[in-house]
Amino acid sequence: MKHLTSEQITELPSRYRTTFMNSISGFKSLQMVATKSKTTGATNIALFNSIFHIGANPAYIGMVVRPDGPEHETLKNISESGFYTLNNVKEEFYKAAHQTSARYKAGESEFAACGFLEEYLEGFDAPFVKESSVKLGLKLKEIIPITLNNTRIVIGEVLHVCVDENLISADGYINLAATNTVTVAGLDAYHSTQLLARLSYAQPEKHPEEINV
Amino acid sequence: MKHLTSEQITELPSRYRTTFMNSISGFKSLQMVATKSKTTGATNIALFNSIFHIGANPAYIGMVVRPDGPEHETLKNISESGFYTLNNVKEEFYKAAHQTSARYKAGESEFAACGFLEEYLEGFDAPFVKESSVKLGLKLKEIIPITLNNTRIVIGEVLHVCVDENLISADGYINLAATNTVTVAGLDAYHSTQLLARLSYAQPEKHPEEINV
Repeated sequence: MKHLTSEQITELPSRYRTTFMNSISGFKSLQMVATKSKTTGATNIALFNSIFHIGANPAYIGMVVRPDGPEHETLKNISESGFYTLNNVKEEFYKAAHQTSARYKAGESEFAACGFLEEYLEGFDAPFVKESSVKLGLKLKEIIPITLNNTRIVIGEVLHVCVDENLISADGYINLAATNTVTVAGLDAYHSTQLLARLSYAQPEKHPEEINV
Repeated sequence: MKHLTSEQITELPSRYRTTFMNSISGFKSLQMVATKSKTTGATNIALFNSIFHIGANPAYIGMVVRPDGPEHETLKNISESGFYTLNNVKEEFYKAAHQTSARYKAGESEFAACGFLEEYLEGFDAPFVKESSVKLGLKLKEIIPITLNNTRIVIGEVLHVCVDENLISADGYINLAATNTVTVAGLDAYHSTQLLARLSYAQPEKHPEEINV
């Protein structure tokens, strides 16, 4: 087994280190974050791989934003408008989703440039991605600065859930694999998934049982 | 498409809502977090699905901890000792990894109870899981309280990386799928993955190219 210390990690070439450290923490939640400028009305899609569940009641979701990264426009739109959407990436269009992370000119929408369609819910001003099958409409709740490295954690409350009805199991489980939702390792390695099993609530002295999906 | 508002989500039965909201945000990074009590020396494994990348230089990783959940012992050990490890879950032992989330008696180690072996690096006091193929040794940097719902974000700096050498590509990419690393949807749905492609850095007016792994 290869062993690297933090000193050796620091000495790695910058791009190698970025790729290495981004792929080491596991498969990640991948979402297209869609926003709309309050001032110009221009729409935007940015690809995020740092989405995490914070709570179910109220329903809170967090994501890490780098102020100097290509997510700059997204953060600006979220801060100004207070609203944004998360839209799952399907195998059918993962290359177009990847393309949304290109640095388009300010005002040029990734929707048009990458071939996605905007979709709106009445009374909710951020655009959804029509092609996605699992979509969330969020309201900004808090932006927490991480002073360690000048990133921020954006926390939103889920106001709207739009999901293909046939993906929802009797107990509330949403079958992301059945709708070909993609996950990502590192910055650029897109993966499809296959269910091994759902397992019953773990208890001491008992083997977990498989749950039907 | 099924549309639910936050009011309707609030009215869902509690267990249904937990399953629903936990599975909706995408596939998640799954890690066995291993710790050791500074006072008793007892070791602990807890399964976390809220791991996220914060930075590559220095290498920071975050995770959400619920103070009242089964992760209570983990948080106590991390706070007291300042060290912990993340260990990937492989398909070969995902059922045993799931079993670590059972509420064992205080002092009873999930290592012994679930059939995992402890492994140590000299000068680093937290245990690694011998069976894992991608392991990280972290030092606690910061615990950020999320006042919205009384959870916390634990941020650690990566001091040690241990990874099977044949998983590392020439550009630093770690092939998690080749080592059968499992991802999770919701709280209990374990998935294997298959690489679709790695895609080149996105640029406007150019289609992304596939990168060899």
